[in-house]
Amino acid sequence: MTLDEALALDADDPLGHCRDRFILPEGIIYLDGNSLGALPRATVGAIADTAERQWGGDLIASWNKHDWIGAPQRLGDQIAPLVGASPGEVLAGDSTSVNLFKLLAAALRARPGRTTILSEAGNFPTDLYIAQGLGRLSGARLRTVEAEAVEAAIGCDTAVVMLTHVDYRSGRRHDMVRLTAAAHAAGALMLWDLSHSAGAVLVDLNDARADLAVGCGYKYLNGGPGAPAFLFVAEALQAQLQSPLSGWLGHADPFAFEPDYRPAPGISRFQAGTPSVLAMAALEAGVATFAGIEMASLEAKSRRLSDLFIALVEERCPELTLASPRGARGSHLVFAHPQAYALMQALIARGVIGDFREPDLVRFGFAPLYNGYADVWRAVDILADLLGSRSWDAPRFHQRQRVT
Amino acid sequence: MTLDEALALDADDPLGHCRDRFILPEGIIYLDGNSLGALPRATVGAIADTAERQWGGDLIASWNKHDWIGAPQRLGDQIAPLVGASPGEVLAGDSTSVNLFKLLAAALRARPGRTTILSEAGNFPTDLYIAQGLGRLSGARLRTVEAEAVEAAIGCDTAVVMLTHVDYRSGRRHDMVRLTAAAHAAGALMLWDLSHSAGAVLVDLNDARADLAVGCGYKYLNGGPGAPAFLFVAEALQAQLQSPLSGWLGHADPFAFEPDYRPAPGISRFQAGTPSVLAMAALEAGVATFAGIEMASLEAKSRRLSDLFIALVEERCPELTLASPRGARGSHLVFAHPQAYALMQALIARGVIGDFREPDLVRFGFAPLYNGYADVWRAVDILADLLGSRSWDAPRFHQRQRVT
Repeated sequence: MTLDEALALDADDPLGHCRDRFILPEGIIYLDGNSLGALPRATVGAIADTAERQWGGDLIASWNKHDWIGAPQRLGDQIAPLVGASPGEVLAGDSTSVNLFKLLAAALRARPGRTTILSEAGNFPTDLYIAQGLGRLSGARLRTVEAEAVEAAIGCDTAVVMLTHVDYRSGRRHDMVRLTAAAHAAGALMLWDLSHSAGAVLVDLNDARADLAVGCGYKYLNGGPGAPAFLFVAEALQAQLQSPLSGWLGHADPFAFEPDYRPAPGISRFQAGTPSVLAMAALEAGVATFAGIEMASLEAKSRRLSDLFIALVEERCPELTLASPRGARGSHLVFAHPQAYALMQALIARGVIGDFREPDLVRFGFAPLYNGYADVWRAVDILADLLGSRSWDAPRFHQRQRVT
Repeated sequence: MTLDEALALDADDPLGHCRDRFILPEGIIYLDGNSLGALPRATVGAIADTAERQWGGDLIASWNKHDWIGAPQRLGDQIAPLVGASPGEVLAGDSTSVNLFKLLAAALRARPGRTTILSEAGNFPTDLYIAQGLGRLSGARLRTVEAEAVEAAIGCDTAVVMLTHVDYRSGRRHDMVRLTAAAHAAGALMLWDLSHSAGAVLVDLNDARADLAVGCGYKYLNGGPGAPAFLFVAEALQAQLQSPLSGWLGHADPFAFEPDYRPAPGISRFQAGTPSVLAMAALEAGVATFAGIEMASLEAKSRRLSDLFIALVEERCPELTLASPRGARGSHLVFAHPQAYALMQALIARGVIGDFREPDLVRFGFAPLYNGYADVWRAVDILADLLGSRSWDAPRFHQRQRVT
């Protein structure tokens, strides 16, 4: 494929107009939306309005007047169609880590006599750490097995199976329907972490009959650095589950200031404290970048972009080895290279932004709303040029910084 | 006192220049900074810069380049002098509710064999609800007694005493030194909720030898609606305590992606997930409104403002009954009135913003940085006028809205 052919694909792209919903710096090819989504064009105005007109002008009255109080539920309902959930099943707020804790603890309580949280060894660390923290507190036990062994390991002591839909490192995508059914067959609940899939690929929680899910607001949802996360609880389960982080905004009547906690009906019971209204305004602008977009077209473009990236790398960059699956995967790719860290630093210096993951991986994410085929072509062109010239091997590119 | 005398006090006020650090709407007397602090003049620029230049321009590199990653500790060190803590003892992030959960669970674990969280019956509900939620999970037990009975109730089963320094309703201020010593004498840890005191009155955690504290970012700290909260752990205790919300940013080496949680040294171990960078930028602008201010001068002005309010109300508004203590209290006042809700709605319609608290209380907060003596005089003048004319009794003022 030539650059002209890639530009022609962009011109024909039914999602091509979405790029204008973002502000991207000149001269940069941003392939890290899987870690931090790009800035939506509407965000700066949205947060300025929330701060100046709402907070500054209407002060405390804004909780009602601008429905600050309803933001977690309103945002949840806006996220729901992106993940195959129904209205009233999704709530925005807190971090992915805190939301995992709420749902894991609630799941354990809903399966009395069972003590195991089952997960995979390569899961994103915060998922494992949170389960370990809950275990120290409650006597539950985190058991991890290799990804391929999860299904067989679900047993009569398994209270909840916790898996990340798309692996943060390899991009491997689990079969949500099959694994959820396997958990249910053993009497366990199924919790999906959608951090690396929501907003990038097709997710259908209700079709899979998933029980619980969490996801990240600052990756493909474009909600801004450290944006509030979200959680999902299937409607039929909500009345049985109770959050251990039973803060006042999850109370049935928060402003009655009753002495005892009574969970709110529905998804609201999973709220804890007061969420940042400015952060919620930015997340709302991020979620709005999906307005009018079918998830199936996101999925299709994601696949075409990453397939093209693989084909071009394999044609022009034999020094790199694909470390992502060729089959079911999400919207990012990793390749192994013996000097992956220095290579990524050199790429960044040339304006191609991906990231490095231990021990020897370069990672590239493809955000279907703002990445195009010419981005892919140009990124591989620069990568091939760097590898050919060995200019990536300069000492300055080997100096380690703390990275995210 | 006349209005001219009040204006003369403002002209002589050593904190008078601080009002210009805020944007307050024309024609409004804002006496609700104890619920939502006013908008600092620098905030809109700070969040726009964080969004446009940092996020939009430098994207993922901002975690290092603009030290987003260090914000929880940096903000903590900025808050520390406002509450009598040392650098490295305070961490910003999460909500007050979530931070309470972390510290209560850690305290229980540090006092094995003891199962009681002791608090007072009138504590702010989220404090009680969070302790109840932790109890359901861990077997701990929340015991509440009346405020005056707390000291005598501390016993050999008390793991931690949890009190709010300044009561959200009455404004009554606990004796931090005496109650902390009483908790220690019984072998218990002492946790203070500073939500209604930090940034308004003198707080000296280290002088009181307090173990643990939490506090709110969106009241007197002016961090914006739902701003990140903060937590305090005395340095000597940090190595013994461990957060149950052991997310990846509390790990000793978060970006090594190790399979097992290892707590970070120092206060960082109390981080869970990724905080909102936009919310942290707004909180930083809020905390900066205290630059150059001695806490003792805040305390003195707070007292003078509320003493003046009491004197003028007692002189001009006999329909109201003071329900705050005349002695040790914080920076807000409550008065009882049989139709408190309608009275507050009528006051708000006249531009005096306070709030209503169940069952029959009107509440007024005095933020020493931006409220002045003439504000107090004018507020009571409008209050007296309303009460005299009974214009507060119109049907529209009786229609209940959900309030915060």
